[in-house]
Amino acid sequence: MPPSPDKSAHEQHDERRHVKVGPISGFPELLPAHQRALDALIEKIRTTYERCGFTPIETPAVERADVLTAKGGVQRQIYGLTRPAVDRADADAPEIALRFDLTVPTARFVVQHEAQLQFPLRRYQHQRVWRGERAQRGRFREFAQFDIDIIGRGGLDDLHDAEVIAVMAQALAAIGLADARIHVSHRRVLTALTEAAGLDGADGMLATIDRAGRAGVEAVLADLARQEVPEPLVTSVGRLLACTTLEEVRGVLEDAGASADGVDALQRIVESAVVLGTPRERMVLDFSIARGLDYYTGLVVETFVPGHERWGSICSGGRYDNLASHFGSRTFPGVGVSIGVTRLFDLLVKARRVEIGAATPAVVLVCTPERDRYLTSYLDLARRLRAAGHDTELFLQRRPLRDQLTTAARKGIPLVVIAGERELAEEAVGLKDMRDGVQRLVPIDELPERVAELLDPASVEVAA
Amino acid sequence: MPPSPDKSAHEQHDERRHVKVGPISGFPELLPAHQRALDALIEKIRTTYERCGFTPIETPAVERADVLTAKGGVQRQIYGLTRPAVDRADADAPEIALRFDLTVPTARFVVQHEAQLQFPLRRYQHQRVWRGERAQRGRFREFAQFDIDIIGRGGLDDLHDAEVIAVMAQALAAIGLADARIHVSHRRVLTALTEAAGLDGADGMLATIDRAGRAGVEAVLADLARQEVPEPLVTSVGRLLACTTLEEVRGVLEDAGASADGVDALQRIVESAVVLGTPRERMVLDFSIARGLDYYTGLVVETFVPGHERWGSICSGGRYDNLASHFGSRTFPGVGVSIGVTRLFDLLVKARRVEIGAATPAVVLVCTPERDRYLTSYLDLARRLRAAGHDTELFLQRRPLRDQLTTAARKGIPLVVIAGERELAEEAVGLKDMRDGVQRLVPIDELPERVAELLDPASVEVAA
Repeated sequence: MPPSPDKSAHEQHDERRHVKVGPISGFPELLPAHQRALDALIEKIRTTYERCGFTPIETPAVERADVLTAKGGVQRQIYGLTRPAVDRADADAPEIALRFDLTVPTARFVVQHEAQLQFPLRRYQHQRVWRGERAQRGRFREFAQFDIDIIGRGGLDDLHDAEVIAVMAQALAAIGLADARIHVSHRRVLTALTEAAGLDGADGMLATIDRAGRAGVEAVLADLARQEVPEPLVTSVGRLLACTTLEEVRGVLEDAGASADGVDALQRIVESAVVLGTPRERMVLDFSIARGLDYYTGLVVETFVPGHERWGSICSGGRYDNLASHFGSRTFPGVGVSIGVTRLFDLLVKARRVEIGAATPAVVLVCTPERDRYLTSYLDLARRLRAAGHDTELFLQRRPLRDQLTTAARKGIPLVVIAGERELAEEAVGLKDMRDGVQRLVPIDELPERVAELLDPASVEVAA
Repeated sequence: MPPSPDKSAHEQHDERRHVKVGPISGFPELLPAHQRALDALIEKIRTTYERCGFTPIETPAVERADVLTAKGGVQRQIYGLTRPAVDRADADAPEIALRFDLTVPTARFVVQHEAQLQFPLRRYQHQRVWRGERAQRGRFREFAQFDIDIIGRGGLDDLHDAEVIAVMAQALAAIGLADARIHVSHRRVLTALTEAAGLDGADGMLATIDRAGRAGVEAVLADLARQEVPEPLVTSVGRLLACTTLEEVRGVLEDAGASADGVDALQRIVESAVVLGTPRERMVLDFSIARGLDYYTGLVVETFVPGHERWGSICSGGRYDNLASHFGSRTFPGVGVSIGVTRLFDLLVKARRVEIGAATPAVVLVCTPERDRYLTSYLDLARRLRAAGHDTELFLQRRPLRDQLTTAARKGIPLVVIAGERELAEEAVGLKDMRDGVQRLVPIDELPERVAELLDPASVEVAA
């Protein structure tokens, strides 16, 4: 028995030219239905950010390598770029690499274009970043982030911190995460305690405290004691980590003789976020969130979805007063948050918290059952439907009608137009609803209108 | 005289940490107003492509290096990636590089995901590509392309070529280029002439003929004669390059005793594109467009804007029957076109053929002139306007009102809300139209509605 034609063709294929295709670990891509669902989610976030007066910025994927490493990039995770042949002889061509986040490129952008920007700059940015991390479950090497930041020149009122919290809460609600809990902390609260204890700053303790969420408060306090942190300070930190209200925080600070600056700022931020529409119960005091060692200078934010705590934080950020200091002489304080949309979408799909719809935007398929005779009519029907604003696919392969209907079903196209001699003689077409199987005879002049009715669920009920 | 504080700070800056920021040649980025204009243009293209039933796909920026070079990538223009530290010990980690176009990744995508895709696949893809070309005027090294392709499995009716022409014509019209001229050619016309002359194929002549647009027909014919192309064939090619109608092409083929297959296909494609809504006069026969040497197998398309011919083709593509052949055993014939949006936008801006609007989506700025007393009212006004669907910015810096109005003017925000003790005592606000300077007293309850009226030009006339 001869091999199947396909098999044979495959075996005869020139091996020199045959290149392996397969996924590269850490570089995900989506099939059409999932891509459309992700695009819809992105669009909801974007609409929310524009509603709150944020404007889009995009930066090149590539930055000078020294710009990336100056701002805390983990050098061993950065993908450098080889020089193309045309640059090999050019000693002045800069070393370039792929960005690992959107915050550093934005800091560079702000310093570079300062004279042409209006401050405070409210920008959103949705682009991909690259990190050569060890491949793990849920860890991607190429992924998109959706960031907002408000960046001032010289100074930035901390009411902007409240704006960022309120806006991110709205964006999360828009994508079905109205239940997300926003954990807030403020660097100056911990700094006040360490200063009252006669220490220089809190930097040394932050990495330890950051473990509280995973290792537990007891383990963290034991660690601090081992690090010879004075016993009264360890006690204060223990009380702080247990605080659930701002009043309790005030009590801890007062007992330690520490400044209330940080808790005043945090209170003002939280109150303003409430007035801006953020439900108070969605904000949770959590002094265990530290987010890195020396990057943030005030508010720190992480966000968790109840029932999905092991996802970790889905939206994180805070206030950074010195980010652009490596690039210029001026101060550009900023506050912002970032949603890791590639990872979040992946988690939402697995948790069935996002709807995966059709593999095409088309809501109508114009079939071509008697193509040789009526091709012009079919092309014209598609043109009419598109002109009326209906996303329309035209079936142009030479196939039996049942194959054409199968295509509509598999792509998830709800309506099909079927017309042959009988229908076209009456200047009409068959309009079939694939969802209930009902086929109606519709005059061509009324077709766009009838399609609109069938797509509007309210009208469908009336018609049924 | 001491230096200014800024100067002083700059001079005292730690030189080790100071990193140069500046543009990297060939890697463009846009200021907010331009970015918004580009986004609006992209959105018009995307809407058109969805209207015609194309679905989005995105692929990683990164492909295996052998995938890119197998499909005709110019190796010396490809940006390779260095391995991150975590992969250095892994001999099996593939060499990876940045894509140079969107067609090769799509061919790889189709072969890899064949079992989960519906064919013909109509996909659009708007992403960036990277080419290490020598920097020239208007040449970018990182730029976005917006592609559509229809890809069949096993076969693809050439009516899809007509669809692609019609859809691209609509997309260009949507971005203000309804005057663009679509130059069409078909590979089989030239092949028929060479076969009739007893030669193997037309590949050797295509590079020469491709120069006709720049060097002129006479120079091309002289070149062909020098290449010892038979004299009757040179004559036929000369007549073909002068053809302006399909009838003339038929005459040339007939006189040469050549097959009319190619001109039949081209005629069918053009006629169908007309029925699909493409004005006949926008399509121009042009057998000088060759587009590379062996990539396209049928229809070839380039697009020029009258009065801007030196821009070159702004949208190009054609039919390729063998693109995926390196990646698998099956045939995946395709047809598609690509708009180089980064370059096109740059040209449109310079030619003032695109409107550059405000630097923010915000249509209202809520000012905070008596912030210490009425902050809660201001925050609440912003919340109300946003809830009503108005893109609203809130001024949160502590500045005099005149600075706040200057911010609105500079960002291009048309309306500002000004409220102090007097207005708020009446549960009203001042709503100032920055375009004509008129300020109205508006009850807070009516604010969202009045904003909507002022933003709708028709209503503005009635109100004036």
